Amino acid sequence: MAVYTEVSDDELARFIDGYALGRLLSFKGIAEGVENTNYLVHTTDGTFILTLYEKRVDPADLPFFLGLMEHLSAAGVTCPLPVRDKSGRVLNELAGRQAALITFLEGVWPKRPKVVHALELGKALARMHIAGEGFPLKRANALGLAGWRPLFDKFSSRTEEICDGLHDLIADELRYLERSWPKDLPQGVIHADLFPDNVFFVEDGLSGIIDFYFACNDAFAYDIAVCLNAWCFDAKSQYEPQKGAALLAGYNSVRPLTDAERAAMPVLARGAAMRFLLTRSYDWLNTPKDALVARKDPADYVRRLKFHQSVGSIADYTAQLTS
Amino acid sequence: MAVYTEVSDDELARFIDGYALGRLLSFKGIAEGVENTNYLVHTTDGTFILTLYEKRVDPADLPFFLGLMEHLSAAGVTCPLPVRDKSGRVLNELAGRQAALITFLEGVWPKRPKVVHALELGKALARMHIAGEGFPLKRANALGLAGWRPLFDKFSSRTEEICDGLHDLIADELRYLERSWPKDLPQGVIHADLFPDNVFFVEDGLSGIIDFYFACNDAFAYDIAVCLNAWCFDAKSQYEPQKGAALLAGYNSVRPLTDAERAAMPVLARGAAMRFLLTRSYDWLNTPKDALVARKDPADYVRRLKFHQSVGSIADYTAQLTS
Repeated sequence: MAVYTEVSDDELARFIDGYALGRLLSFKGIAEGVENTNYLVHTTDGTFILTLYEKRVDPADLPFFLGLMEHLSAAGVTCPLPVRDKSGRVLNELAGRQAALITFLEGVWPKRPKVVHALELGKALARMHIAGEGFPLKRANALGLAGWRPLFDKFSSRTEEICDGLHDLIADELRYLERSWPKDLPQGVIHADLFPDNVFFVEDGLSGIIDFYFACNDAFAYDIAVCLNAWCFDAKSQYEPQKGAALLAGYNSVRPLTDAERAAMPVLARGAAMRFLLTRSYDWLNTPKDALVARKDPADYVRRLKFHQSVGSIADYTAQLTS
Repeated sequence: MAVYTEVSDDELARFIDGYALGRLLSFKGIAEGVENTNYLVHTTDGTFILTLYEKRVDPADLPFFLGLMEHLSAAGVTCPLPVRDKSGRVLNELAGRQAALITFLEGVWPKRPKVVHALELGKALARMHIAGEGFPLKRANALGLAGWRPLFDKFSSRTEEICDGLHDLIADELRYLERSWPKDLPQGVIHADLFPDNVFFVEDGLSGIIDFYFACNDAFAYDIAVCLNAWCFDAKSQYEPQKGAALLAGYNSVRPLTDAERAAMPVLARGAAMRFLLTRSYDWLNTPKDALVARKDPADYVRRLKFHQSVGSIADYTAQLTS
């Protein structure tokens, strides 16, 4: 949510000259993206996003992220398309940072997603999984099962600063997940961070998916499990089965889940809740209270995790509440 | 440089429905403006800036600021034009704030202004002064001569936290300014804060003037004195006579300065330096080091003030340096 790197008019004009995009008309630093600096750029040819990659992004990963956007875009997914400069490069240097220009997507992200949003999300997620086939680069999920215990070890002595009982909740759950994590599920390129602020809609139609900077190779169904956590709980972290049902129905209508994927959904959802509980807890303890980036309360994911622990099978994610 | 107030997609869509601007396509919080929250908004009709007025802006002043932009725009000045909603209003409420939609101006502000920028600025400033004639509302300059001593009193006991000698420099200068401040200079509506980040250029042509939230009624020549301080010193606070000469020549070519204005320029420039020295010093002492808004070093205006104290007449502002 911040502009970490300032760019001057002269350096940006020179940078834009390297692309066949006409003349620079204007640019504004935008308050999007926790990790990188983003500018909205107008040239005589159109509107673009300029991203300057800050220190939390490993430069070695950039060819994967940018190549994936090109691959998905060519396969019909509405995602930002990196623009190639006059030499054919998508990555350049600006203001001491690696930088890329990508196409601008219209749309707004839903602050309070509706059932129709979850339905469209499910379809788009399945289309994205299919479109990723054939992408030649690989990237491991740094925040998958193998990464959770090392991350927990970094703050396990300080859990009482967040809430009582958190240490044992995480420790017990990690043991469960390490014992129960499914193997051999259908794999491919997943987004891995498909929260509502990464999905744009114009009215109720899905207009684009952005922010592929956690994308990696992992189980497709884990991506759905992330979305169950990110889209299907209300502001009080109560599960909303209508949204879960719509998400799964939308996904199934494009790419039917296998029996193994269906059986694994509760444990995958527990794992996805763990992943965000761990990163939020770490950030909570390591981000100054008055920092540029707002801290997100880990307690939301304690409640989600406990809900998933109560789930017996995937059918529970679509069950209508009885009052 | 921050988005202080978050707006949701639903509330913004409802807000936009109140205007005849088509459908909402996208909006991004932009990192511009120290005082207010700004979003760049795309609708099917075009691009706009949405401003939410934060607590440092007095709501009673908004009709002056917005009315002035309408008046200047109608008189041919390229400045943002407030858009009237379907009921004819320019001011509405959004997310608990007074809010206005204004037209978007293309252009970039020059981080290191060139002589040609100063020349175009001078012409545009004179045109703006003339265009302001007939604007019926009035607003006193809250940061004019009468406001300086009360502002100094708020931090005069803490000047040594900024630099040695600052207390006496300001106290002596205030006495000089109160004794010497010119009266009866040609008056009208002035911008009063025309720094480079408020003036847009496309290539070397001036494309717009923004941010009228310090505009007020005061001496035209004081506005020029602000620009001498804001545009005509280099990064080390050394005066650049080529830029000063271009600024004055551009202004004179549209609205020739009177003899009284020419005679008053050195004291007006000292006053303008004092105004920014005071507000920067106050902000320096009262802004946390890690705040969202970057603190600006008051020392830049100590150096400017000392330069102006060495000036004998307006001719010194256009003198070529001898090496």
